[in-house]
Amino acid sequence: MSTPAAFYTGAGSVVYADREVEAPIPGEVQIEVAYTGICGTDLHIYHGVMDGRVDPPEVIGHEMSGRIAAIGGGVQGWSVGDAVTVMPLDWCGHCPACVAGHTHICHNLNFIGIDSTGAMQARWNVSERTLIRLPPTLDLRHAALLEPTAVAVHDVGRANVQAGEKVVVIGSGPVGVLIGLVAQSVGADVVILELDPFRRGIAQQVGLRALDAAAEDVQASIDAWTAGAGADVAFEVSGSAGGVAMAVQVLAVRGRLTLVGIHSAKREMDLHRFFWRELVLVGARLYGREDFESAVDLVANGSVHADLLISRIEPLDHTADAFAALENGAGVMKILIDCQAPAHPDHEGARR
Amino acid sequence: MSTPAAFYTGAGSVVYADREVEAPIPGEVQIEVAYTGICGTDLHIYHGVMDGRVDPPEVIGHEMSGRIAAIGGGVQGWSVGDAVTVMPLDWCGHCPACVAGHTHICHNLNFIGIDSTGAMQARWNVSERTLIRLPPTLDLRHAALLEPTAVAVHDVGRANVQAGEKVVVIGSGPVGVLIGLVAQSVGADVVILELDPFRRGIAQQVGLRALDAAAEDVQASIDAWTAGAGADVAFEVSGSAGGVAMAVQVLAVRGRLTLVGIHSAKREMDLHRFFWRELVLVGARLYGREDFESAVDLVANGSVHADLLISRIEPLDHTADAFAALENGAGVMKILIDCQAPAHPDHEGARR
Repeated sequence: MSTPAAFYTGAGSVVYADREVEAPIPGEVQIEVAYTGICGTDLHIYHGVMDGRVDPPEVIGHEMSGRIAAIGGGVQGWSVGDAVTVMPLDWCGHCPACVAGHTHICHNLNFIGIDSTGAMQARWNVSERTLIRLPPTLDLRHAALLEPTAVAVHDVGRANVQAGEKVVVIGSGPVGVLIGLVAQSVGADVVILELDPFRRGIAQQVGLRALDAAAEDVQASIDAWTAGAGADVAFEVSGSAGGVAMAVQVLAVRGRLTLVGIHSAKREMDLHRFFWRELVLVGARLYGREDFESAVDLVANGSVHADLLISRIEPLDHTADAFAALENGAGVMKILIDCQAPAHPDHEGARR
Repeated sequence: MSTPAAFYTGAGSVVYADREVEAPIPGEVQIEVAYTGICGTDLHIYHGVMDGRVDPPEVIGHEMSGRIAAIGGGVQGWSVGDAVTVMPLDWCGHCPACVAGHTHICHNLNFIGIDSTGAMQARWNVSERTLIRLPPTLDLRHAALLEPTAVAVHDVGRANVQAGEKVVVIGSGPVGVLIGLVAQSVGADVVILELDPFRRGIAQQVGLRALDAAAEDVQASIDAWTAGAGADVAFEVSGSAGGVAMAVQVLAVRGRLTLVGIHSAKREMDLHRFFWRELVLVGARLYGREDFESAVDLVANGSVHADLLISRIEPLDHTADAFAALENGAGVMKILIDCQAPAHPDHEGARR
């Protein structure tokens, strides 16, 4: 059958067109995709810097929700109409990382939506082992935020955040805000640092304390808040050199810096401070199934204010506009693509 | 009374002279110092770069062994003649780090032998709470290596090294070799990387596998040794930019890099690798009493081949020569100062 799709066709270019989707093969299901979010990695792809992994023209996208539309042979336990999201990882099972149980860091990982075809289309075939079941009552718009929420759950877990700990999050994009909310859900006291006033405003709307990262008295504010000790945990989500430097600076003795942002350039690190305060730096990448399951609970019970994080919903044929708006940046958090519009032009989410 | 001492008097200068030592005040003991080792930090002081903390003329030195010679008021449980070493830390007890139980990272730490008078003298007054009891049979020359051994115990503990793990130590100075031996004592499989052939030779003499850090096939050797997985733990003990880069490179998924060497300059770090492999960087500084107690066991039971690490023993009035020899570097591991020579010119250790 033919399905409408948004193709990344090379740096700065996204084209809406039809593509052929086969019936699901044994072990696969076909999903009628409801919503697909655009994340920072998708924007990197759009900038052309990931063409080593993405081979245009290709359909990308990995933050999604939908319903099962067709079921391949041998798939047990799933029915047409079931609401699902996808954990977009396919691992080899035999490399040293897989053998050690760290399948999400597989040396040969296929990240679905980057290394293979993604979810910015109306129908998407995926392996049944990627499926995460959703509560039938969960709004599928909110469910499109489950993947970044699973990232946040994994990050907070890697940092081993405890109730009562003081946590600084550097960067108030969607993942930064989600980390703040997940940390708050385990009882931590959270401050988020962000340069952009719009993003600080969103953090405040969802109930986080947000400070201007460029304010002269940031360090003094952290000192006062922590009675001179420094923060127990810092999350570097900005991906900037300044974010790393600030994270190192705000931490208490034995503080943990969790590295979430992508730093493609090398960063100058004050290793003497790591020695002097016995700091710990923790790399955190992706998630496991248990992180997705926790994410479903947090979105379903309202701990994650998904509605406040969704800035706009655009129909599939406006995907190029959505990328341009994110590129522009100002006044936008998460943009979802409604993958059933304009195929169903009266779809409730087509214009929100 | 008057005691002979070696004074650091400013960059590049050590002078042998007498100084006055008072009788120990209440809570103190006076130690007849047997041997004091010269460590890398002492060499930094000798270079003049720590004059912000050391106020010349000052007696430095903090790796030592000796016997109690006099006891101040109120000191219980110690007798004249008891063999001891000193944990050279004096903390405030009320800063956030002390309150959190991390007294060795006290915000106001007095490191005895740097921030206050040290052990390169015949008699030394210290607080009773710094004392570590030694088995009467322990050779006091070997006991002078207890402080760096406690560093190594602390470092291996911070890295949480487990039996069967593959451990790379970068830098085969005294602390690097001691880390290798302590890791081996908990059942780890150790490879040490070092540029200097003399230091590689010492590592091999004590039973460690040592590779030339500059050899083209180092990475291939590590890959073969770990079946492509990478090492579980790396200790950066060289203090060099190249050492940091190599440590990051050799680690397996979820590998732990323990930072032991002093990096006074900022270092360019491949943070993407930390993200990609979920690496962990762990700062490690000094030690606690439990680390010293483990160190006593390891030196006493022969796990640490202290004799092979001691290159020379110089009398106290030759301390300036000892610093010059370390400055020169080649063919030297640990140099001890015999603090009772030449006061007792027939002392067995005066010329070894």
